[in-house]
Amino acid sequence: MSEALPKTCDDPRERVLRAAERAFVASGFHGARMAQIAKEAKMSPGHIYHYFESKEQIIAEMIRAHYEEKKVTVERYREAGDQVVDMMIDNLKDSVAAKTDPFWSTLMLEIAAEATRNPEVASSIRNMDAELKGRVISYLQDSVRKDNLESRLEIFVALMQGIGMRNILNPSLDKEAVTLILRDVIEVLFRQKD
Amino acid sequence: MSEALPKTCDDPRERVLRAAERAFVASGFHGARMAQIAKEAKMSPGHIYHYFESKEQIIAEMIRAHYEEKKVTVERYREAGDQVVDMMIDNLKDSVAAKTDPFWSTLMLEIAAEATRNPEVASSIRNMDAELKGRVISYLQDSVRKDNLESRLEIFVALMQGIGMRNILNPSLDKEAVTLILRDVIEVLFRQKD
Repeated sequence: MSEALPKTCDDPRERVLRAAERAFVASGFHGARMAQIAKEAKMSPGHIYHYFESKEQIIAEMIRAHYEEKKVTVERYREAGDQVVDMMIDNLKDSVAAKTDPFWSTLMLEIAAEATRNPEVASSIRNMDAELKGRVISYLQDSVRKDNLESRLEIFVALMQGIGMRNILNPSLDKEAVTLILRDVIEVLFRQKD
Repeated sequence: MSEALPKTCDDPRERVLRAAERAFVASGFHGARMAQIAKEAKMSPGHIYHYFESKEQIIAEMIRAHYEEKKVTVERYREAGDQVVDMMIDNLKDSVAAKTDPFWSTLMLEIAAEATRNPEVASSIRNMDAELKGRVISYLQDSVRKDNLESRLEIFVALMQGIGMRNILNPSLDKEAVTLILRDVIEVLFRQKD
């Protein structure tokens, strides 16, 4: 979920999904209407219903698309092998920038809020989240400290998503200072002791 | 924002605020209607409008009430003096329990999402947030490490709020293991070096 999809895309389903993201960020999942999504996508509402049955289906596919993107991102952990902690530290500036992008942090809030109210969304997110976490653990386990690895990972994800939320409540967040301090936190969370 | 208000309360404004919180958690700020809040509060809608002009006013007062509660909580930092890092560590279990209370974490998501869409809510939250942070910094500054204290505090708050969000996406979060690991994170964030 770290980068926006490319700005131009000829696949009409992709065009609807990107239009829906903009509408959700502007008005929330509940506030956004199909007519608004259609307008954003420069399509007729009837045309949208040709590709998606309902707003709920758009939400579900949007969430799935983001998890697919995340899967690609976490492949970097696998490729980094025993350099993975250094890689996490080297990538911190980009990770903080991605998490504090107001578009994505707002969308994350919408998704999490929806999960509290919609059992289907909750169940689908939880399954994808668990699968992704299992994958990350299998990539990291030989290169980072092993005690309570799953919980260490939870703390790292919590921290990065929390920083996105803080940036909404404090837009003057000093991202450079935060990035510097996070290096120490990653060291304590993941570095294997000699 | 760590504890629910007492369950019984004769002040009708308080009764409306608590009913509104339940309605917002169930349906979101946008989804909740004044009629639903009235029903939760066991009042007629007309009676509610006697105390609050609009849903927006209820949201504003609810957010203010939570910041007032937080102000009381952070007084503990002042009282702890040079034992404040130990106190943060001792309180971790309770802090994690409070942040992972589904009611409060959902309400926090609603408040943050509302701040992205409603400039008045955003401005009011940002002012209260900055005031509270200034207060905490003045309480901590003699007892914790001083370099980049504001950003260290941002990271701590991000982490705790992020854990609330993680608990929504992963309800089997191992709170005990998380609490143990957080001790090390607090040490690295705040402990003064000898």
